[in-house]
Amino acid sequence: MEIDTPNIKNQRLLREINKCNILGYILKNGKASRVELAQRFFIDKKTVTNIVNELLGDNLLSPAGFRESAAGRRQELLTLNSSYRNYIGLDLGATHIIGIITDFQFSIKERIFYDIRPGLSVEVIINQMKTILKSLLSSDKINAEITSIGMCVPGFINPKSGISIIAENIPGWENIKLKENFEKDFKKKIFIEDSSRALGLAEKWIGSGKDQQNFIVLDLGYGIGMAMFADGRLYTGSSYKAGEIGHMIMEINGRNCVCGNRGCLETVASGKALAMKASDHLKSNSSGILYELIKGKPDYVTAQDVTLAAEMGDEFSINLLKKAGDYIGVALANAVNILNPSTVIIGGGLISTGEILVENIIKSVKLNTMMGILDDLGIKLSRFDVNGSALGCALLAMRPLFEPGININY
Amino acid sequence: MEIDTPNIKNQRLLREINKCNILGYILKNGKASRVELAQRFFIDKKTVTNIVNELLGDNLLSPAGFRESAAGRRQELLTLNSSYRNYIGLDLGATHIIGIITDFQFSIKERIFYDIRPGLSVEVIINQMKTILKSLLSSDKINAEITSIGMCVPGFINPKSGISIIAENIPGWENIKLKENFEKDFKKKIFIEDSSRALGLAEKWIGSGKDQQNFIVLDLGYGIGMAMFADGRLYTGSSYKAGEIGHMIMEINGRNCVCGNRGCLETVASGKALAMKASDHLKSNSSGILYELIKGKPDYVTAQDVTLAAEMGDEFSINLLKKAGDYIGVALANAVNILNPSTVIIGGGLISTGEILVENIIKSVKLNTMMGILDDLGIKLSRFDVNGSALGCALLAMRPLFEPGININY
Repeated sequence: MEIDTPNIKNQRLLREINKCNILGYILKNGKASRVELAQRFFIDKKTVTNIVNELLGDNLLSPAGFRESAAGRRQELLTLNSSYRNYIGLDLGATHIIGIITDFQFSIKERIFYDIRPGLSVEVIINQMKTILKSLLSSDKINAEITSIGMCVPGFINPKSGISIIAENIPGWENIKLKENFEKDFKKKIFIEDSSRALGLAEKWIGSGKDQQNFIVLDLGYGIGMAMFADGRLYTGSSYKAGEIGHMIMEINGRNCVCGNRGCLETVASGKALAMKASDHLKSNSSGILYELIKGKPDYVTAQDVTLAAEMGDEFSINLLKKAGDYIGVALANAVNILNPSTVIIGGGLISTGEILVENIIKSVKLNTMMGILDDLGIKLSRFDVNGSALGCALLAMRPLFEPGININY
Repeated sequence: MEIDTPNIKNQRLLREINKCNILGYILKNGKASRVELAQRFFIDKKTVTNIVNELLGDNLLSPAGFRESAAGRRQELLTLNSSYRNYIGLDLGATHIIGIITDFQFSIKERIFYDIRPGLSVEVIINQMKTILKSLLSSDKINAEITSIGMCVPGFINPKSGISIIAENIPGWENIKLKENFEKDFKKKIFIEDSSRALGLAEKWIGSGKDQQNFIVLDLGYGIGMAMFADGRLYTGSSYKAGEIGHMIMEINGRNCVCGNRGCLETVASGKALAMKASDHLKSNSSGILYELIKGKPDYVTAQDVTLAAEMGDEFSINLLKKAGDYIGVALANAVNILNPSTVIIGGGLISTGEILVENIIKSVKLNTMMGILDDLGIKLSRFDVNGSALGCALLAMRPLFEPGININY
C-alpha cells in the first residue's frame, strides 16, 4: 500500500485517525471512558481529552454516567449523542423498498415498507422511492437535522458518480442517475452503495461483524450477493463490482441466468429461483399444501410462500429449500476456501423466513469447506431481519466519521 | 481499519512510510529522480533529500546517471544498489525444489533446480533443501552479505511461528518447524510463506502486478493456488489460509480429493489431475503419441508429458488440456465475480509448458465472468516461468523495506 502523506497535513491526518478511532469504538461498544480510549489506541490522555472535548463541544458525544475503575476511581463514560443527527436509509430491492430514519446511535425511529409487485416500471419505482422519502422527511419522529440520505440498489453501482449502472433483477433498471436526480429534488447529499455491501457495513459497525477484521456477509434475497471485509476495510474490488457470488457457476451448462451466463447460483438457489421452481411445479401439480396456500395462482408464488409451505410440512417445498441450502453452502464454502474469513455472517431477507434453508446452508458449508479453514471459521446469523441493508444505508453518510481515510466527497 | 497511532512514534512512523514508498517506487520503476519522488508522494523536496541521503549513506540506493527534465534542468537518478545485499529464495513444490540467489534488484545470480520424484520421504526432502542452501551459500556469485533466507511451501503455513502446517500434495508433510530447524543450522533469519502468495509478491514488486492495487494471481502447478491483493496489500485471510481455489468444488459428488472433499478443481485440472488422468488412460490404451513418449510406463507420466504430446498432436492430450482449461477458467471466473480484480495474472510452472492450456483458460474465463466485471478485467501471463515463487521468497525478507506496516519481527 502506498500511503500518500503530505507532510503539511500530517498532524491533521493523525488527529483525524484518532478521532475516527474514538468515534468508531464508541459506536461499536456503546460507551467508553477516556482512560479506556487512551489505552485502546495508545494515545496519551491529554490527546484523548482534547479530542473528546472537541467531540462533546460539537455535540457528537454526550456524557453517559460513571463507572468505578478497578483502582476505585470513578471514570466518566461517553456515548454517541443520539440526537446529533438523524439519518435516512433507503433500500431498493427487487421486491421491496424499505425506508428508515435512524438516530446517531442507529436505532430505527421510523420505517416504511413497500412491496414491489412484478411488472412495475422503473419510473413508478423511482416515484415510489421519492414518495417514501417525502413521507419519512415529514415524520414527527425526527428529532435532529437530516443532511444526507443513503441509498442502496442490488447490482453494479458507482458511488462516485452516484449512478446505479444495472440491477439485473429489476427489469429495465439501467444507468439511473440516483445522486443527481434525488439531490435535485431533496436538496440533501445522496450516497449510494450496493445492497449487499450496505448490509456488510451494518454488520461491521452495529451487527455481528463488530470485532472481525476479515469476514464475509452473505446477502440472501431475491438475488444473492456478498460483502467482504479485508483487514477491517469494506472491499469493493477494482470497479465497485465485487461480491457477485450469486453468479458463481454451480452447474456447467445449467439454466440460463439474467446475467447472460448459465448455471449461476441465482438460477438454482435464490428467492427468485425458489419462486420460479415452485411456479413450474405448481403448473403440473395442482394439489398439496403449497398449492392450497397460494390458491391456485402459480404465477404469483413467492419464496416466502415456499418457506411457509415447508414449515407446514409440504414435501416439495422442504426438498426445494434443502437443495437450495446445499447449493448456497457449496458457493459459500468456495468463497470461504478462497478468502479464509474468521466469520461468515448469513443475512438478507430470505433468512428471516424459516430455519430449513439456513440449517441446510450451514450443514453444506461445513461439509464443503477445507478442514483447516473450517477449524478457524465462525458462522453467525445476521441480527437484522430484513432491515440490514437500510441500516447500512443510514450508516453510509457517517463512514467518514468512523473510518479514517474514507473520502467524504464522493 | 483501526490504526494504532502512538503519538510518541508519529514522526518516526511517517518517516518510515515515506522511506518505504520511496524504496518501493524505485524497485518497481528501476530509477527515479528526487523531484519525481517528491511529486509522486506529495512530500516536500527537503524531506525527500533527507531520506535519499540516508538511503545513499546506508548503501540501499546508488546514483544512476542523470536525465534532462522538461524545464531543461538535469535531474540525478537513483536506483537500488544491487550489491546492498544478496537474498536467497527457496521454493519447495510437490515435484521440485528451486533455490536462487538474487541481488538487491532481484536479478537471479545463481539457481539450483532439483526434481522431487514421487515417494521421497519428508526427511530426504528436508535434507535436500539443506544441501541446496549450503551449495547456494558457497556460490562464488555472491557479492554481498546474506542475512536472511525466504522459503515457500504449498499449503497452510504460519509465518509467525515459521511452521509449515500441512502440504497435502507432499505425503507426510505435516507440522514442519522450518524456521526453527533452518535457523539453527544456517544462523540466518528464515521467513516462510505459502507458494502462491510468494508468487504473488514477485508479481506485485517485479512482475505483471506492479501497477495494480486489486489483482489476483493464479498459481498453476502440481496443485492450484491463488494470491490476492486487496487495496495494494497481500491478503492472507484471518489465519494465513486464504487462496485455496484448488479446492473450489467443480463437480458436486465428484472424485475424491486429498483434502477430504470431493470434486475439487485440483481433482479435474491440476498438474496432478492431468498426470492421473493420463495414467488411467494409458493403462487401457497402449498406443498413441503420449504412449510412445513415455515408453509404456503409465505410472510415470507427468503433466509435462501430456503438454508435450498435445503439442505433437496427440488427440487425447489435447482434449485433456482443453477440458482442464475449461474448468480452471470457470473457477477463475467464479473468483473474479466475487473479487472484481483489475487484473488476473496466470502463472505457475504449468503455464510454461504450452499454449493449449492457457488459451482454453482465457477462453473459459471470458465466457464465464459476468459481463460488467469482464469489461474491467485485464488478463496477463506471469513473466516468471517457473522461478516466480522462488523470486517471491527472495523478496520476503525485504518486504519491511518496501511495505509500510509489515512487521519485520515474525
